[in-house]
Amino acid sequence: MTAIHQPSADLTDGAVLTGDDIPVPHGFVSHVANVGIKDDTTDFSVLASERPCVADAVFTKSRFAGPSVVVSRRHLADGRPRAVVTVSKNANVATGEEGLRNAVALAAGVAAALECPTEDVFVASTGVIGRPYPMERLHTHLQDAVTLEEADLAAVARAIMTTDTVPKLAAVRVGDATIAGVAKGVGMIEPDMATMLAYLVTDADVSPDVLRPAFRRVVDRTFNCLSVDTDTSTSDTAVLLANGAAGPVDEAEFEAGLGAVAESLVRQLARDGEGATKLLTVTVTGARDGAQARRVAKAVVNSPLVKTAVHGGDPNWGRVVMAVGKCSGDTDIRPQDVRVSFGSVEAYPAPADDGLLERLAEVLRADEVEINVGLATGEASARVWGCDLSDGYVRINADYTT
Amino acid sequence: MTAIHQPSADLTDGAVLTGDDIPVPHGFVSHVANVGIKDDTTDFSVLASERPCVADAVFTKSRFAGPSVVVSRRHLADGRPRAVVTVSKNANVATGEEGLRNAVALAAGVAAALECPTEDVFVASTGVIGRPYPMERLHTHLQDAVTLEEADLAAVARAIMTTDTVPKLAAVRVGDATIAGVAKGVGMIEPDMATMLAYLVTDADVSPDVLRPAFRRVVDRTFNCLSVDTDTSTSDTAVLLANGAAGPVDEAEFEAGLGAVAESLVRQLARDGEGATKLLTVTVTGARDGAQARRVAKAVVNSPLVKTAVHGGDPNWGRVVMAVGKCSGDTDIRPQDVRVSFGSVEAYPAPADDGLLERLAEVLRADEVEINVGLATGEASARVWGCDLSDGYVRINADYTT
Repeated sequence: MTAIHQPSADLTDGAVLTGDDIPVPHGFVSHVANVGIKDDTTDFSVLASERPCVADAVFTKSRFAGPSVVVSRRHLADGRPRAVVTVSKNANVATGEEGLRNAVALAAGVAAALECPTEDVFVASTGVIGRPYPMERLHTHLQDAVTLEEADLAAVARAIMTTDTVPKLAAVRVGDATIAGVAKGVGMIEPDMATMLAYLVTDADVSPDVLRPAFRRVVDRTFNCLSVDTDTSTSDTAVLLANGAAGPVDEAEFEAGLGAVAESLVRQLARDGEGATKLLTVTVTGARDGAQARRVAKAVVNSPLVKTAVHGGDPNWGRVVMAVGKCSGDTDIRPQDVRVSFGSVEAYPAPADDGLLERLAEVLRADEVEINVGLATGEASARVWGCDLSDGYVRINADYTT
Repeated sequence: MTAIHQPSADLTDGAVLTGDDIPVPHGFVSHVANVGIKDDTTDFSVLASERPCVADAVFTKSRFAGPSVVVSRRHLADGRPRAVVTVSKNANVATGEEGLRNAVALAAGVAAALECPTEDVFVASTGVIGRPYPMERLHTHLQDAVTLEEADLAAVARAIMTTDTVPKLAAVRVGDATIAGVAKGVGMIEPDMATMLAYLVTDADVSPDVLRPAFRRVVDRTFNCLSVDTDTSTSDTAVLLANGAAGPVDEAEFEAGLGAVAESLVRQLARDGEGATKLLTVTVTGARDGAQARRVAKAVVNSPLVKTAVHGGDPNWGRVVMAVGKCSGDTDIRPQDVRVSFGSVEAYPAPADDGLLERLAEVLRADEVEINVGLATGEASARVWGCDLSDGYVRINADYTT
């Protein structure tokens, strides 16, 4: 099976940079603080451009989308966003009219500090559902304490974390410009059109006509191909801000760079999935169309039985064919034509020798596991990312609010 | 919210009987043995009528349906089935042409013992995927040892178990007739059109025109409303055999009785879900149509975050609204109109007092948890059954084949 979706191959500069010391695009500022939402870790952050931006954002399709998403959607339509304010440890979801007023108040407070219209500020929120914000503390902080300094992306990446165990950062250089991103989200992860929280910022000068379709394509094949647990968040938000400070760049290189940053963040998110010990990548090739490829890939990456087998290092390839079989509407999939491999080891049809299970077990011992499925129904392909299902996931989520 | 789907209310005799000593319909025989599929527990069983039957069966829609399902489907179309032979601990799935030949040989061997055509025998198989049967041992057993005696349903219920921890049996009396059923299946459970293994036998005299639509309706609202882990088995089979030995019964009472037996088996299956400690029932009312009701109910009962919260006794009602929100295509669902209760305790919109979480926690301490969702989009309703997600599920499935 051949590799697919390798946008970084198109990058002249090649490497995606990760970690706290990634380069920061010119002209971005940030503010990070603790306002006492849950404990004494940082829970309030602003990431903003000093100058106007070309911006785009995609949001959860949940019917219970939170007030943050409602307000941000409105600002994407009506404003010219150049900042995003995030409250973590409280999602401000299912909080009624009061929750909506509070989200607007957040945007207005940050806009005052930035001296821009309220409509130019996105709002994001992540954490427990169904609890009002501590608005007195937030108002006090907004009035007195929002000081913006040169962007500290590592601090922002930490301030938006909830059950994440590590911050997620990635950046690439594209011409004279930098594309950098931060993301959070390790549970309630099955983005549908959008994603957890992911903020990408760049100083490239890109027109809206180029930026928006490129961002949508990148989100669709990266964040939307990530799944930790099939549960779609009420707060998913992915934002891209481009302030043009570094001048124009090649359009194809821009999209490739954007894709490389997004894919790196997705892999970091999957690897840090709640309780996860392994990154699981499922690639489907030879599909009738992209939708079939993704449907089958998601059936495999989301199967609790595949995920537990990966966790236990159990070479139970039968569960992969079971998961493929779940796509019962895909009547063109013929069991006798399907091929399954773990890494480069062919699993189905099962080779006629005795060493198969041991070879598969060897693949499963690594902390990155690739499962490949060939459908022989066409030429399309898709790749999705997930993680194993462990006792840790259960323990984290059996006790989350208490 | 009012209760729905209570077919037993229509039964003149009322109670559903469960346990090893349920009554057995007249004219049924069985055979149970160990043929050494995996260990020394019973793994081979036959349940049959001494006389011709009106029969029906529904099967998995998996694209990787096993040879047992392929052969049984053919026999439902061409034969007049009155027996089902089951091999447990090996699913005989993804075993190619050899697997199909072996399934036919099983049916033929049992048909010889019963002195009936091969087409009158259903074949079922459950267990690990991708391993051939030990056919020499099976052939030897079929030739010499299939002795049929008065049906021992408790022995059959045990012989079809894999990771089940208890056998599942249920029966009702309908007029002079008895409807009895056995079932197995506690993982890879998300039936789609059919179910795990469930065999229902009755001595009622029912015409095919009455039996088949009644059976399909009952399966649809019982077995198809059960979910342990969203993974659809390759081997799901539900069989109903009616041999008429007890004479005719009222048609409505027959369907009500069939429904009561099936619902009892479903509750037994959910409660014994792999690693489960609690039975979870989700009821959706006020839906636009039955499909919407079931879609929302399944979104809730299948949510790993709802299931882990139920496991941990965590009164995290926000996860229920999150799960409702996942039905993003249901644009008529308005968050402000949705109602959620745990048992009789209203959770959303959240009451304006401080005792809510404690009252919800009290509901969650019971070993049967009911979550009710009102959608206010119409008048339809649905009920589904599942269980909590525990470390036990992970441990069972991280080590299953090895």
